[in-house]
Amino acid sequence: MSTLLDGVATGSIAYVLNTLGYSSCFMTGVRPVTSVYRFAGRARTLRTLPPRADIVEQNRQDRSKDPHRVVLDHVSEGEVVVIDARGVLDAAVCGDLLAARVKFSGGQGIVTDGCVRDLPGLMKLDFPIYARGVHASVFGNRHVGIGVNEPIACGGVVVLPGDVVVGDEEGVVVVPAQLEETVAALCQEQDELDTFVMEKLEQGRPLQGTYPPDTQTRNEFERWRSSRR
Amino acid sequence: MSTLLDGVATGSIAYVLNTLGYSSCFMTGVRPVTSVYRFAGRARTLRTLPPRADIVEQNRQDRSKDPHRVVLDHVSEGEVVVIDARGVLDAAVCGDLLAARVKFSGGQGIVTDGCVRDLPGLMKLDFPIYARGVHASVFGNRHVGIGVNEPIACGGVVVLPGDVVVGDEEGVVVVPAQLEETVAALCQEQDELDTFVMEKLEQGRPLQGTYPPDTQTRNEFERWRSSRR
Amino acid sequence: MSTLLDGVATGSIAYVLNTLGYSSCFMTGVRPVTSVYRFAGRARTLRTLPPRADIVEQNRQDRSKDPHRVVLDHVSEGEVVVIDARGVLDAAVCGDLLAARVKFSGGQGIVTDGCVRDLPGLMKLDFPIYARGVHASVFGNRHVGIGVNEPIACGGVVVLPGDVVVGDEEGVVVVPAQLEETVAALCQEQDELDTFVMEKLEQGRPLQGTYPPDTQTRNEFERWRSSRR
Amino acid sequence: MSTLLDGVATGSIAYVLNTLGYSSCFMTGVRPVTSVYRFAGRARTLRTLPPRADIVEQNRQDRSKDPHRVVLDHVSEGEVVVIDARGVLDAAVCGDLLAARVKFSGGQGIVTDGCVRDLPGLMKLDFPIYARGVHASVFGNRHVGIGVNEPIACGGVVVLPGDVVVGDEEGVVVVPAQLEETVAALCQEQDELDTFVMEKLEQGRPLQGTYPPDTQTRNEFERWRSSRR
Amino acid sequence: MSTLLDGVATGSIAYVLNTLGYSSCFMTGVRPVTSVYRFAGRARTLRTLPPRADIVEQNRQDRSKDPHRVVLDHVSEGEVVVIDARGVLDAAVCGDLLAARVKFSGGQGIVTDGCVRDLPGLMKLDFPIYARGVHASVFGNRHVGIGVNEPIACGGVVVLPGDVVVGDEEGVVVVPAQLEETVAALCQEQDELDTFVMEKLEQGRPLQGTYPPDTQTRNEFERWRSSRR
Amino acid sequence: MSTLLDGVATGSIAYVLNTLGYSSCFMTGVRPVTSVYRFAGRARTLRTLPPRADIVEQNRQDRSKDPHRVVLDHVSEGEVVVIDARGVLDAAVCGDLLAARVKFSGGQGIVTDGCVRDLPGLMKLDFPIYARGVHASVFGNRHVGIGVNEPIACGGVVVLPGDVVVGDEEGVVVVPAQLEETVAALCQEQDELDTFVMEKLEQGRPLQGTYPPDTQTRNEFERWRSSRR
Repeated sequence: MSTLLDGVATGSIAYVLNTLGYSSCFMTGVRPVTSVYRFAGRARTLRTLPPRADIVEQNRQDRSKDPHRVVLDHVSEGEVVVIDARGVLDAAVCGDLLAARVKFSGGQGIVTDGCVRDLPGLMKLDFPIYARGVHASVFGNRHVGIGVNEPIACGGVVVLPGDVVVGDEEGVVVVPAQLEETVAALCQEQDELDTFVMEKLEQGRPLQGTYPPDTQTRNEFERWRSSRR
Repeated sequence: MSTLLDGVATGSIAYVLNTLGYSSCFMTGVRPVTSVYRFAGRARTLRTLPPRADIVEQNRQDRSKDPHRVVLDHVSEGEVVVIDARGVLDAAVCGDLLAARVKFSGGQGIVTDGCVRDLPGLMKLDFPIYARGVHASVFGNRHVGIGVNEPIACGGVVVLPGDVVVGDEEGVVVVPAQLEETVAALCQEQDELDTFVMEKLEQGRPLQGTYPPDTQTRNEFERWRSSRR
Repeated sequence: MSTLLDGVATGSIAYVLNTLGYSSCFMTGVRPVTSVYRFAGRARTLRTLPPRADIVEQNRQDRSKDPHRVVLDHVSEGEVVVIDARGVLDAAVCGDLLAARVKFSGGQGIVTDGCVRDLPGLMKLDFPIYARGVHASVFGNRHVGIGVNEPIACGGVVVLPGDVVVGDEEGVVVVPAQLEETVAALCQEQDELDTFVMEKLEQGRPLQGTYPPDTQTRNEFERWRSSRR
Repeated sequence: MSTLLDGVATGSIAYVLNTLGYSSCFMTGVRPVTSVYRFAGRARTLRTLPPRADIVEQNRQDRSKDPHRVVLDHVSEGEVVVIDARGVLDAAVCGDLLAARVKFSGGQGIVTDGCVRDLPGLMKLDFPIYARGVHASVFGNRHVGIGVNEPIACGGVVVLPGDVVVGDEEGVVVVPAQLEETVAALCQEQDELDTFVMEKLEQGRPLQGTYPPDTQTRNEFERWRSSRR
Repeated sequence: MSTLLDGVATGSIAYVLNTLGYSSCFMTGVRPVTSVYRFAGRARTLRTLPPRADIVEQNRQDRSKDPHRVVLDHVSEGEVVVIDARGVLDAAVCGDLLAARVKFSGGQGIVTDGCVRDLPGLMKLDFPIYARGVHASVFGNRHVGIGVNEPIACGGVVVLPGDVVVGDEEGVVVVPAQLEETVAALCQEQDELDTFVMEKLEQGRPLQGTYPPDTQTRNEFERWRSSRR
Repeated sequence: MSTLLDGVATGSIAYVLNTLGYSSCFMTGVRPVTSVYRFAGRARTLRTLPPRADIVEQNRQDRSKDPHRVVLDHVSEGEVVVIDARGVLDAAVCGDLLAARVKFSGGQGIVTDGCVRDLPGLMKLDFPIYARGVHASVFGNRHVGIGVNEPIACGGVVVLPGDVVVGDEEGVVVVPAQLEETVAALCQEQDELDTFVMEKLEQGRPLQGTYPPDTQTRNEFERWRSSRR
């Protein structure tokens, strides 16, 4: 259930996706909340709306169908729960108990452009959680779950169910499912080039000619690359 | 296809809905763009997301299934098109040609928490259009249509397909379909009370005792009301 | 009960106050809501906070002491009600009935950095009302009144009870009570200078030397001014 | 000194520029302040920064070199003054006297993403002025002029000196100087197509096939177009 | 002078207060600035306004009555200073010296929805300080103190003097004084339930039936709880 | 190439500059991104604008003149690169490779009111980098470089080329070049006073009389100061 993008830097992925025409792939303002950073998995999404009495009542009457509960209670191994919280900064999408359920079901992480709660409990969970902030107000104060595994936006990035979602210290990047292999291959090449360029910069080389590489540097890189294999 | 709420002030409707537990029913920041204000109809909704290359391409390949086109091209008599534009202020959801199609299909109005374009053309259309602003940038620069007649939020208000949407100079209010009759009845009573109270205030009465009415004022109102029938 | 600043342009007043060291005297984002623009009067203030159950309950139990009611129900001739609404854009501070009470008590206007409601009714009232916007949601959804005639801020400007508040098409300016006479005198002089300068500019004079006036222009102005008396 | 784009709708220009790869050409939030809408001319730009004591002092010592004065005092026939005010909403870039100087020098309009002051005076001027708002606070409270005829951004749009700037009810669009002819030609064609499409929509045609036009509609349009010549 | 809520998680308190009808009790955007997190105490409040020349002058003439000084210089054992800074992010409410005075007077912490300054000095103080950010600009650049121990709002939460204010890694929660005992008792029960639920989730139990607990889980919990006493 | 302000706290510098009439000298929202905090150097500036096709093309055709490249590739010993990114939060101004070039050229730091990318790489660089946030989107998605060593604003502060820029845990302060010596001298005196005052506060002295010091405290301070020499 792992992905080819496990362990690849989000910066590299975003760079490569940009060259493929996907310029909005990195979530804005979504940062690691706990001190566990790295994760990768398949998107499992929740769409939310502001609360409205009739919808709230309907969800309450049968919690087994409440999308907020469904998305968190039925995670499969390798999934990342991504919650479109419409950028709301004064209510949480989940706390330590709901997050624990995701972890113990084999989930890889939780990502939202809203907030999470129970920070001390989340720290103990030892699980990757990314959000725009922390707020102790409960989900129902500002949200109602409206749909599971629909296309959503989170932090300005479109997320389709099944997309590959990757996080590190920098934040969260979303890779369309069909591009996983292409992106993985291009990232490997890009990372090698970057390593080579960094060596040259450390030796005092200017950017001009080195990065982006001109023909001469490109040739040098190919030799360097061959010599390392 | 008309509604019982045709011609009722949005302020009255919002007041009555608030007493029924629906406090978030009036759209924030959504204002009349043209000088045609009053409308009422059933919600036909469009949900949008930021553009993403694969979704854009798919919509382009078969425009007959592009949700942005579907929602505007297949309006039924009495419907109001409501577009959740995620509050985007630097691109339009439609211009005068698309709006004209809605009008000539029997639509009652267009409402969005984004922008519209072709203002001079919209003014000539003589059709109710409500938005957060005006911007000439086209839909595709910031939006992709993702679903027709799904639940959405617009201006902070949840809109379900089929809800009654009413607009006047003040803005736009959304009435859950099942509450139409109740709200219409309560609004009529409230409007009579308000007319009575306004008369009393003009005569120099204080708010205290008059509004909200104490028992004595309530009795006076009942007599005044009977006398007018 | 009238003030020396009745009819003086807010732009002139703000300019003069700035020269006296009062640079933040003109409210940001507070605009005329109805088509009645000009007013001047003494500030009567309301301070608000977000609603909290115990305070709401206390105000409900004795409405005669609820600051929101007190400020609107006991206006004296020549007063302007200024409501610090903390910039809230999704709830109103009053509607047409409460505004009517202010008008029929001899009030000169209502000013808030929040919203007002019942726009069609307010238009009929023929009374100066300035706000940041229009929203049908009622006061109690976002506000509780906390104090009458306390110092407040409205639109970024400090307002003390008794300050002179003046409005025109441009917006609202606040003059500390002790500066009324000084400001009135300086405005008169400034307006004469501006009239003179405008004449010169119409004749093709450059700004350089004319505005601000150098010694020669200043002398010309003094002759022009004497000749008009 | 007039431009080929005089009288062309900003919506048409923005649409055409978008097809040429210029998607950010229409200013966000910049609206007509007075009731004079239409203008077109060549950009004359001012760049501003927040005030800093040493720069303020230097400008004060020789006003003839103060960029804020230079840009407004030396306008040539046919120019539009465009002021990058960094979106500041609580101070003006000019009032009626400075605007008068621009008008009487043969300027075509003033555009800023900040505010203007002296609204009553500006209304009397009968001159196109576009801004994000109105505020009586003077320029020096928030701005210092730093450079005339440098490249700037205004309302999110890059403006180079000499670009063609066009305004109507909708707002302001900026056309790179080298594209003036191309855009004018494409707009004429687009406007004819739009007129044709509007006729078809009025007759009940659907968007599908009509707009954008399929081959059949395109042929119909060509015949219609020929017949009108 | 300690409170029953010393050491209770803010998340638990906010959850319990929400069930009692106090949904807005947790401050938005107010985060620990130093690495000392936990505190609890009674609110001592300061209300601020933007600076205005006459008020600034009055406070300067008698600093012993300047509310900004009074609130920080006369703290009693067990108090938390809470400063309503109107969300201002470009000026501080205090630096290390003023904070030191609060600490050495027996204060329990400082909380503001504005900024603080002298971060290196604050870090050395070893004292709980919560704010929206850090900024070196001094108080007087954006604030004037207007009243001590008045009701205020801080981070969107109403704070009355004497309320219990509690902070931890998550942020700051405010408990109305009269609810202290009730909240403490309910939090203890809630925390036991949460501990029990976490154990069950670790064992692979689903949310459904476990959290919130159905009758069976509730019975299990009661047995578990009895067995631990 | 070092400055007299090396190692002086930004809080002290900002305090002293404020007394000299420079109240806006500390950048708002610009925070250390890596865990290397302290730096001081001379400003080398980059001004940016939103991308526009013709300017982008011109920069691409000759990268040796692209201001974004020039500013980073030709840093002199002791310089700090300051990039005015117009507060953009969803694109970076540089990543680890470009930052490495600055470091290996003898630069002292990089400061921007936008974002940076490649956070894991930046952490390894061991170099002071200050920004408003972290975002993996590349420079060209939101920016084009327009001028090197022009006056700019960054985080609300004017920066002229050659100004002294100093950073610590608190953030970044900008000292006009001509004030370097004055500020250094005043900061030393202020820091001694602060040390003295802190000692007194630890002994239980009130603010009143101690800070700011009255004549008696001032005399005490002078004796304390002499005794330490």
